[in-house]
Amino acid sequence: MNIFVAGRYSTKVGELWDLSLADLFVEAVNGVINQAELEPPQIEAVFVASKAAGEFNHQLHLNALVSQFFKHQPPAMRIEGACASGGLALIAAEQALLSGQYKTVLVVGAEKMTDVGANRATEILSMAASDDLERGSTFPGLYALLAERHMAEFGTTREQLSAVAVKNHRQALNNPLAQFHQEFNLEQVSCSPMIASPLRLLDCSPISDGAAAVILTSKKIKNKPRIIGFGHAQDSLDLAHRRTLTELVATKRATEQALAMAKLTPQEISLAEVHDCFTIAEIFAIEDLGFFKKGDGGRATLAGETAVGGKVVVNQSGGLKAFGHPIGATGIKQLVYVADQLEQDRCQYGLTHNVGGSGATAVVHILSKQ
Amino acid sequence: MNIFVAGRYSTKVGELWDLSLADLFVEAVNGVINQAELEPPQIEAVFVASKAAGEFNHQLHLNALVSQFFKHQPPAMRIEGACASGGLALIAAEQALLSGQYKTVLVVGAEKMTDVGANRATEILSMAASDDLERGSTFPGLYALLAERHMAEFGTTREQLSAVAVKNHRQALNNPLAQFHQEFNLEQVSCSPMIASPLRLLDCSPISDGAAAVILTSKKIKNKPRIIGFGHAQDSLDLAHRRTLTELVATKRATEQALAMAKLTPQEISLAEVHDCFTIAEIFAIEDLGFFKKGDGGRATLAGETAVGGKVVVNQSGGLKAFGHPIGATGIKQLVYVADQLEQDRCQYGLTHNVGGSGATAVVHILSKQ
Repeated sequence: MNIFVAGRYSTKVGELWDLSLADLFVEAVNGVINQAELEPPQIEAVFVASKAAGEFNHQLHLNALVSQFFKHQPPAMRIEGACASGGLALIAAEQALLSGQYKTVLVVGAEKMTDVGANRATEILSMAASDDLERGSTFPGLYALLAERHMAEFGTTREQLSAVAVKNHRQALNNPLAQFHQEFNLEQVSCSPMIASPLRLLDCSPISDGAAAVILTSKKIKNKPRIIGFGHAQDSLDLAHRRTLTELVATKRATEQALAMAKLTPQEISLAEVHDCFTIAEIFAIEDLGFFKKGDGGRATLAGETAVGGKVVVNQSGGLKAFGHPIGATGIKQLVYVADQLEQDRCQYGLTHNVGGSGATAVVHILSKQ
Repeated sequence: MNIFVAGRYSTKVGELWDLSLADLFVEAVNGVINQAELEPPQIEAVFVASKAAGEFNHQLHLNALVSQFFKHQPPAMRIEGACASGGLALIAAEQALLSGQYKTVLVVGAEKMTDVGANRATEILSMAASDDLERGSTFPGLYALLAERHMAEFGTTREQLSAVAVKNHRQALNNPLAQFHQEFNLEQVSCSPMIASPLRLLDCSPISDGAAAVILTSKKIKNKPRIIGFGHAQDSLDLAHRRTLTELVATKRATEQALAMAKLTPQEISLAEVHDCFTIAEIFAIEDLGFFKKGDGGRATLAGETAVGGKVVVNQSGGLKAFGHPIGATGIKQLVYVADQLEQDRCQYGLTHNVGGSGATAVVHILSKQ
């Protein structure tokens, strides 16, 4: 499969009071075109990711908003799949490239979440759960159920959850674009305010503003990272219909697809940006992606096996937890980060893992240095 | 291009108080699978269209909602592009088929608009205009500006606008699924309450609930309609940046693409479902699609040239005006209707035309009997 990452760009992530949603899109689009050293007319189509710009910013029809940045107004569509919107927009773009209709496309995602208050933001986020069966639930509440099950079944501990946050905050210190540059120790995480037992404030990813973009092309480019596998799978929208609460089946299925396409095993991958919307989510992820056996994710994290220098470096960027989680951008900024590391020759293969809701949508990408 | 419409289904359109958004999706998905005489596991991927289920129904993540109707939970993504969401979901599905990744996919769109009051619905609809430059505008207001310009430039008359509504309401009498089964005469339309001068109540399409679905396949099927061309183009989100207000450039560009792919001229097409969200929109459409020269659409309509028995039958279903406009379903129900007519041997070629916002997104499809 010939899909190359011709350009990549992430904005700073954080509470960006000076920037509107449109400003974020403009920065990411201009940034990626400059980084790719392309002329704008070479962009043949645009795929836009946003979870909830209608709710957060009173703006739907983002495909038209972004297309008009270009004089030639390329065809554009917006993709939504909750917190996996960015990953799904990449999939749509890849299918368009593989169809042969386009050779070079832009994928851009953004979310401007801080223009509403925290209560309204929580309500908007909950629209990605089942309105029929989980109305009134929040995502910390749903992931708390998953955490309780994992702890009961495998003996995952409070300290192990905290180890995810400690690692990701420490790793974010080296990422100038990250929302947080603050270290915490295990005790600080374990004693932070309770949100939904057992999840505490420092178990949760933040509300963020940010944007990210990549230019993908089917034209062979030397010395640019290549996408060698992708997978996309679903599970039930609500937790009640899952056949298990101790693994995220969509992640497992998407991973199998991506690994088969890339002809790799998990053990050959040394860098992974995974969907740690909560600390427990990273523990699920590193197990369901195949890096560790089921139930062993907490132990491995506390033992440092997922930190820089470990068996597989997980969320070196800081992850959703500390880099931040501007939803529509998240799946794309993961790819930007991994492509950066590959181009700087830091490893051969990298993986990204983007999840929607409590695990109902999962998208996995595998990249190679070439 | 081998893309066949293996199955098609539209629900009744109207104020469907007994049905939830999920109910509408369920009916359309079951309906289309029965109509196609397929087994559910043959659906390899799902493309879901909705404009604003977050705002109308507190439900995002519709890809997961629909995928879970299937035991095998196929990969799914939601596409949004304002009122062109249905058309864009078809484009995404077509690109996925042409990529070779899938052979048979489902495209389903729905909107459940009547669970909020009319004022809130108007506000939600306005999210498809530019929040920066058109905040406070409503779509009747924006299309009123287009109507004023068309009337000033070409002498389009009040009576000609009314003729669109009279025709589409009359044609809907033969469509049992239509929201309205009520005839109006020219005077009744011309004297209906003013909404945004010159547009009156009976110039406007309604707020509707409904769903529609098609199954598209790249496997050759005998005696099923075939998609022989599609086009997708953009214009500026806001009216202020358009180079003209008397033609919708995105429609013209999308039409050129679709006709080139189908190797047809507009004169070879005898049936068209066009995006008549307002009466003036149908006049723009039949000109910009190339059926009539610019400025001649009003005259042609009043002369009966777009009615059954005319040169090209436009909105035989009743159109958005009288069949109804359940937004996410609209672009798909147009295709369902045209495919129905082709399979019943009523004509050789049919066209569908789906627009987002005040013309910023346009999608055109051309179908052949085979």
